Amino acid sequence: MNAIVLLTDFGHQDPFVGIMKGVILSHAPRATMIDLCHGIPPQDVSAAALVLRTSVEYFPKNSLFVVVVDPGVGTKRRIIWARTKRCSFLAPDNGVLSWLPEKIIECRQVSNEKLFLTSNSQTFHGRDRFAPVAASLSKGLFASSLGPKVSDRLIVPFPFPKRGRHSFVGEVLSFDHFGNAITNLPSSEIPPRAHVVHRGRDLGPLKTHYAEAARSTRMAVAGSAGLVELSAREGDYASVTRARRGDPVHVRFRP
Amino acid sequence: MNAIVLLTDFGHQDPFVGIMKGVILSHAPRATMIDLCHGIPPQDVSAAALVLRTSVEYFPKNSLFVVVVDPGVGTKRRIIWARTKRCSFLAPDNGVLSWLPEKIIECRQVSNEKLFLTSNSQTFHGRDRFAPVAASLSKGLFASSLGPKVSDRLIVPFPFPKRGRHSFVGEVLSFDHFGNAITNLPSSEIPPRAHVVHRGRDLGPLKTHYAEAARSTRMAVAGSAGLVELSAREGDYASVTRARRGDPVHVRFRP
Amino acid sequence: MNAIVLLTDFGHQDPFVGIMKGVILSHAPRATMIDLCHGIPPQDVSAAALVLRTSVEYFPKNSLFVVVVDPGVGTKRRIIWARTKRCSFLAPDNGVLSWLPEKIIECRQVSNEKLFLTSNSQTFHGRDRFAPVAASLSKGLFASSLGPKVSDRLIVPFPFPKRGRHSFVGEVLSFDHFGNAITNLPSSEIPPRAHVVHRGRDLGPLKTHYAEAARSTRMAVAGSAGLVELSAREGDYASVTRARRGDPVHVRFRP
Repeated sequence: MNAIVLLTDFGHQDPFVGIMKGVILSHAPRATMIDLCHGIPPQDVSAAALVLRTSVEYFPKNSLFVVVVDPGVGTKRRIIWARTKRCSFLAPDNGVLSWLPEKIIECRQVSNEKLFLTSNSQTFHGRDRFAPVAASLSKGLFASSLGPKVSDRLIVPFPFPKRGRHSFVGEVLSFDHFGNAITNLPSSEIPPRAHVVHRGRDLGPLKTHYAEAARSTRMAVAGSAGLVELSAREGDYASVTRARRGDPVHVRFRP
Repeated sequence: MNAIVLLTDFGHQDPFVGIMKGVILSHAPRATMIDLCHGIPPQDVSAAALVLRTSVEYFPKNSLFVVVVDPGVGTKRRIIWARTKRCSFLAPDNGVLSWLPEKIIECRQVSNEKLFLTSNSQTFHGRDRFAPVAASLSKGLFASSLGPKVSDRLIVPFPFPKRGRHSFVGEVLSFDHFGNAITNLPSSEIPPRAHVVHRGRDLGPLKTHYAEAARSTRMAVAGSAGLVELSAREGDYASVTRARRGDPVHVRFRP
Repeated sequence: MNAIVLLTDFGHQDPFVGIMKGVILSHAPRATMIDLCHGIPPQDVSAAALVLRTSVEYFPKNSLFVVVVDPGVGTKRRIIWARTKRCSFLAPDNGVLSWLPEKIIECRQVSNEKLFLTSNSQTFHGRDRFAPVAASLSKGLFASSLGPKVSDRLIVPFPFPKRGRHSFVGEVLSFDHFGNAITNLPSSEIPPRAHVVHRGRDLGPLKTHYAEAARSTRMAVAGSAGLVELSAREGDYASVTRARRGDPVHVRFRP
């Protein structure tokens, strides 16, 4: 029995995550469930895609990731199951699996209605479809029972930075709870003496940890997701600078 | 060993839920615990009652629900244990079990002090009483050891909508994390062409899913709890409309 | 296999806690993990120290507490492992273990790099160091494999109240989700007729539970942590009074 890893935008105010767990345990009493995150901003498919990109490798092999960030719930958007070498995934076909760190080697539509709960509502597929299907898979259901193979799943391109001869131009992708701004700039490709610039301010060369700068100083750090983060030591960079998602971030090789 | 399902208003800022789990595991190391929800607004007994009404059926049979929404903690209000055909419950006797989907067939006062932790404080019965009693029950304690039968538990009437010949008048009961307003109107009783009206605005006939309306459009949806929800597609209905709990919601059969 | 208890300032918006659990389960598939709290204010070492002081006794014997409140992550600050009679701890050497309810009887530096994940980043030791070391310990690793003994760990003194002949002077240490202000005054040492005074207002003698006062009335209560709490019945004391951490709180033996 492999771990079921839950990723949603349900937050913690409501019983939605608890109900999904109730359904899973009703059908698979020995399932191991791990909460990856339920704090994805509502309906923010690309935030969830980024979390998967940077998290999957840290989970046990053969984990099943159940992703319910699903603005199209109840429409004809498909639910898909996908498999990489390492793990498998259950998600809406809305691009949320576009940025996985590994190639998808099998993808199926989840269309076998026998696997779903009967329900009078079309607004909570997490409970009525994702949870019971996850339980069945964790008990050994063959993927071929889910539905037909899919070759045209929706793919959203990753916003790679623009690489110039003397500079990169990236952007702010998201913010964390500490106020750090996560960019799309891969730390490993930033030359040692290059300077990071955001909103006209030169943040200097990349630091390796937050405490390297003086207290409250703004800096750019090689973050834990392999991406450059903009940070204020023991402060909240996002609120201090009013940074926004999509803000351009420049890397100048010769400052 | 059956699942212990936790429902509180403790939030996630403090260690209260964690401490309850510590006590349960100290006394019943093999207990399975599920968090139903800890985001009930502080001391909001009816919000917790509504969550139980719409959640219980999704949990494994014989689950024990431990409900700690308890403004009267430390007073002479009783702690009660109750059993329905499907599940059992541990809760303050404050009406929180009034709206269960099944009839209570046995109810006892939890008065056997031998089951409690000794404590110098009277403010955290979740830790000192609910958790150790839940652990004992999960290990097979007979209900008769809890205390005497109770026949006069506090019951809070459900706020059913007023049914007229040509209309219903319901009200907003609560809001979820996405900003949807949950009403007391049962979706299954709304005629197909009836219109839902809130704050003077006609939201049209009931939709079956959020994406059925244009982006940002306001609508009424057949929600996952079997109740009509007021919603703004990919928006936050509560903040856009400044809806309040208790707001009247009209259903007009002939618009 | 003993329980692994997690205490961090990671919040619930991000996947950080989930990723730590993924790493632990990858290395110790049978580990039992309990979330003590992830709502410690960012980088607030003394808030975490206070939670440990008041929580540890409620967890199963031999639990391993993993504490990641770590403003110095990536610097030369040490990670330490410590053992008391009852439990063990993995934490940064920043004083967070200073206020434990039991004496530390063994303390080691966690310096054996073979136990860590290899990583290109220095900002998420929860993932790269704490989690894999916790997994190894839960599987039976000898403490002597962690690193050398430490005798000079950082100790932060507990802010004991000042005791006079006719009064105590304490202070507000923190606030909980309900708005109660937790002080450093031990309830058991407050004489029965003494009055508690905060911001010039006499809150009267210590009450034993919140509902003892009239609704919205301000009061002082013998709280669940063994400390005096300032509270407003069914209200939010912190926001009503604008109380601040560090506010002096007086206990007058003869009012």
